[in-house]
Amino acid sequence: MDFELQATAEGTAARAGLITTGHGTIETPVFMPVGTVGSVKAVHQHELRDQVRAQIILGNTYHLYLRPGTEILHRAGGLHKFIGWERPILTDSGGFQVFSLADRRKLREDGVEFRSHIDGSKHLFTPEKVVDIQRTIGSDIMMALDECPPGTAERAYARKSLDLTHRWLERGWRHYKETEGLYGYSQAFSPMVQGVTYPDLRRESAELVADLGAEGNARGGLAVGESAEVMYEMIEVVNDILPADRPRYLMGVGTPANILEAIDRGVDMMDCVMPTRNGRNGMLFTRHGIMNMRNRKWADDFSPIQEDGPADVDRLYSRAYLRHLFIADELLAMQIASIHNLAFYLWLTAEARRQIQAGTFARWKREMLECVTRRL
Amino acid sequence: MDFELQATAEGTAARAGLITTGHGTIETPVFMPVGTVGSVKAVHQHELRDQVRAQIILGNTYHLYLRPGTEILHRAGGLHKFIGWERPILTDSGGFQVFSLADRRKLREDGVEFRSHIDGSKHLFTPEKVVDIQRTIGSDIMMALDECPPGTAERAYARKSLDLTHRWLERGWRHYKETEGLYGYSQAFSPMVQGVTYPDLRRESAELVADLGAEGNARGGLAVGESAEVMYEMIEVVNDILPADRPRYLMGVGTPANILEAIDRGVDMMDCVMPTRNGRNGMLFTRHGIMNMRNRKWADDFSPIQEDGPADVDRLYSRAYLRHLFIADELLAMQIASIHNLAFYLWLTAEARRQIQAGTFARWKREMLECVTRRL
Repeated sequence: MDFELQATAEGTAARAGLITTGHGTIETPVFMPVGTVGSVKAVHQHELRDQVRAQIILGNTYHLYLRPGTEILHRAGGLHKFIGWERPILTDSGGFQVFSLADRRKLREDGVEFRSHIDGSKHLFTPEKVVDIQRTIGSDIMMALDECPPGTAERAYARKSLDLTHRWLERGWRHYKETEGLYGYSQAFSPMVQGVTYPDLRRESAELVADLGAEGNARGGLAVGESAEVMYEMIEVVNDILPADRPRYLMGVGTPANILEAIDRGVDMMDCVMPTRNGRNGMLFTRHGIMNMRNRKWADDFSPIQEDGPADVDRLYSRAYLRHLFIADELLAMQIASIHNLAFYLWLTAEARRQIQAGTFARWKREMLECVTRRL
Repeated sequence: MDFELQATAEGTAARAGLITTGHGTIETPVFMPVGTVGSVKAVHQHELRDQVRAQIILGNTYHLYLRPGTEILHRAGGLHKFIGWERPILTDSGGFQVFSLADRRKLREDGVEFRSHIDGSKHLFTPEKVVDIQRTIGSDIMMALDECPPGTAERAYARKSLDLTHRWLERGWRHYKETEGLYGYSQAFSPMVQGVTYPDLRRESAELVADLGAEGNARGGLAVGESAEVMYEMIEVVNDILPADRPRYLMGVGTPANILEAIDRGVDMMDCVMPTRNGRNGMLFTRHGIMNMRNRKWADDFSPIQEDGPADVDRLYSRAYLRHLFIADELLAMQIASIHNLAFYLWLTAEARRQIQAGTFARWKREMLECVTRRL
C-alpha cells in the first residue's frame, strides 16, 4: 500500500491524499461503508460502486470467520471474489466485536477466548490467528488484534490494557512480516493507537505504533462512550507523533459533524454503521440537515427526497413516498435510505477533499457543520 | 383498454395478445408482480423495469386505502406518480384482503364493514366506494368488489355468496359507468367470475360477467385451498363463455407449473406473491428447477446463481454467496432472490408467448413443466 500526500489545508491539519492498493486507488479523505458479513446492508455491490461511489468497504474478521468461515473464503479465492467486489477492502480485526460479547469471552495473555454469538461454539483469537484469518479473507488492509476497553475505563485498567494490546501488536506484526498474501497481491497491516482517554497513554501508544513503520495507522477505542470533545482531543494529541506520510484511519466514527471534525484534525479514513443503521430506522443525513422520514410533515411533500442529492434515488422517489414506505415497513424504504446516506457520506468526504485542494476547507467546514447538524 | 388477440396455439387454448392502456402496452400472456402497498417488496422501480422487465404491476385497494390513504394519493396525482412507476397498474379490489380479516369484518347487503388491521378503525367497503377508491388510485385496470368464499365452501354458501357478488358487480359496474378517471386517462373495470368449485355456478357467473361487456374479465376465488386439478377445471368450464377478444386474468396464481397450465387454458394475465414471498425465504425458481438457497449443498458452489438466468443478479453473484447472505440474514439476500424470481416469472410468460407465436407451445410446455417442478 502506498500513500501520496497531495495537499494540506492551510490553518488546519486536513489533508488530501491518494492511497494505492492491489485493488486500485483511494482518494482521501474517504468514508468507508461497513459490510460486516460481506454485504453492506440493503445495498447491491453495483449500487455501492455507481450510486454511493464507495472506493473501499469494510468487512469484519470476527463475523466472516464465523460465517461463511475461512475454508469457504479460501476456496472462493478471498472475500473480493466471494462477494463480487473489485475495489479495496479493509477488515477490522474483530477485537471490538469479541470484546462486546461481555460474558461470552475470556481475556488471556495469548489471546481472547470467546463463544460464538451464533451457536455458542468456543474459539480463540490470538494476534497471529487474526493475521492468518485476514490473509485468508484477502483484505487489502488488515488490522491488528487489540483489546478494546470502554471509553470510560479507569486509568489502571487502561494502562494494563494498553500494555497487552502492545504485546499483541508486536506479535501480530512479527507474524504479518513472516507471512504472505494468498492471492497474488500485497496486504497492508495496520496497528492502532489505543489508550482510552488518557493523553499520555495515547502518546505512548502512538510512539510505539509510529516506530513499527506500518503502511497505515489507525486510532481505535474512540467513539465508545466518551464525549465528542474528548474524542477530538485524543485525535489531536497523537497528530505530531504519527507519521504524516502514512494514511490515518479513525475507526468507527461517526456523525457527519464528527467526520468533518476528524478530517479537520488530519484523519484520512473513517468508517461507521451510522449511515446504514440510522438509515434503516428512517433517518436521512443531507447537506441541508437531518430528516426523520417517519415524521408526519413529509406525508404530503411530493418533492424529491433531495433535488440536489448525491444519489439517483434522491430524484427517483418523493419524500411522501419514502415516508409511506417507512410507515408501511416496506424493505424498499431501507434500501433507499441506505443508498442515500452512504452516498451523502461519500459526497461529504469527496467534497472535503475538493475544498482542501482548493484551499477553502476551513470556511467550508464551518458552514457545512451548521448545515449537517440542523433538523429539517 | 384495448386487446388484440395475436395468436392462438394449435391444440391448446393458449393465446398471445396485446393490451393497450393509457400507460402503454402489455404483451400477453404476462405475469404481474405484486406491489401491495405501492412497492414490490425489496425491488426498486428501475429494477422492476430493467431487470425484471415487468410490464404491469399490482396494487391493493384495501392496503392503499388504509395507507397512505386516498387523500395523499389524490394529491400525488395517483399511484403511478406517487410511487414513480410509468407503466400500467392493476388494482385488486381489496375484497380478498377484507374477507381474510375473519372476525374483524361483517358482511352486509350494502357492502362489507371491517376494522383496519393497523389501528382497528372501522370502515365500510361498498361496490361503489371501491370504484371511487380505485378512481383515486388511478389504476389502469380496476377490479369489482366480490365476496371471497373459501375454496372448500359448501354449495349453499357458494350459491348465496355468488348472488351477493353478482348484485355487487351490477352496482359497481353502474357506478363505474357513471364516473370518470381523475387523471386524464381511461380506466378499465374488470368483473370476476366466482362460484367456488361448482361448475354450474362458475358457468352462471361467467354468463353474467360476459354479458357486461367489460374490457377485461377475471377469475377469482381460485388457488384458495382447492386442488390444482380442480382449479384447472374451473378455468376450463368458463372458457367458451368468456369472450375470446377480451383479456382473461386469473387472480393470485401461482407456481411456475400453475402459470404454464393456466396459459395452456387461455389465461392472459396472472399475479402472485409467490416469487417475492418464497424468494425472501430462500426459494429460487429457475428454468432448470427449484433451488432452496439455505441448503448446505450451495455453501461451496461458486458458480453464478444461474449462468443463463434472466436477470443481471444471476451472473453478478454466486450461489455460495447468496446462500451465505440467507444464512446470515442479510437484506441483500431477499433483494437478489426477489429480482431473480420475478425476472424468471416474466421470462416464463414471455417465452410462452414466443412459443405460442412460433406454434411450438404445446411441446415446449410439456418439457418446461418437467424442468420447473424439479428440485435442484
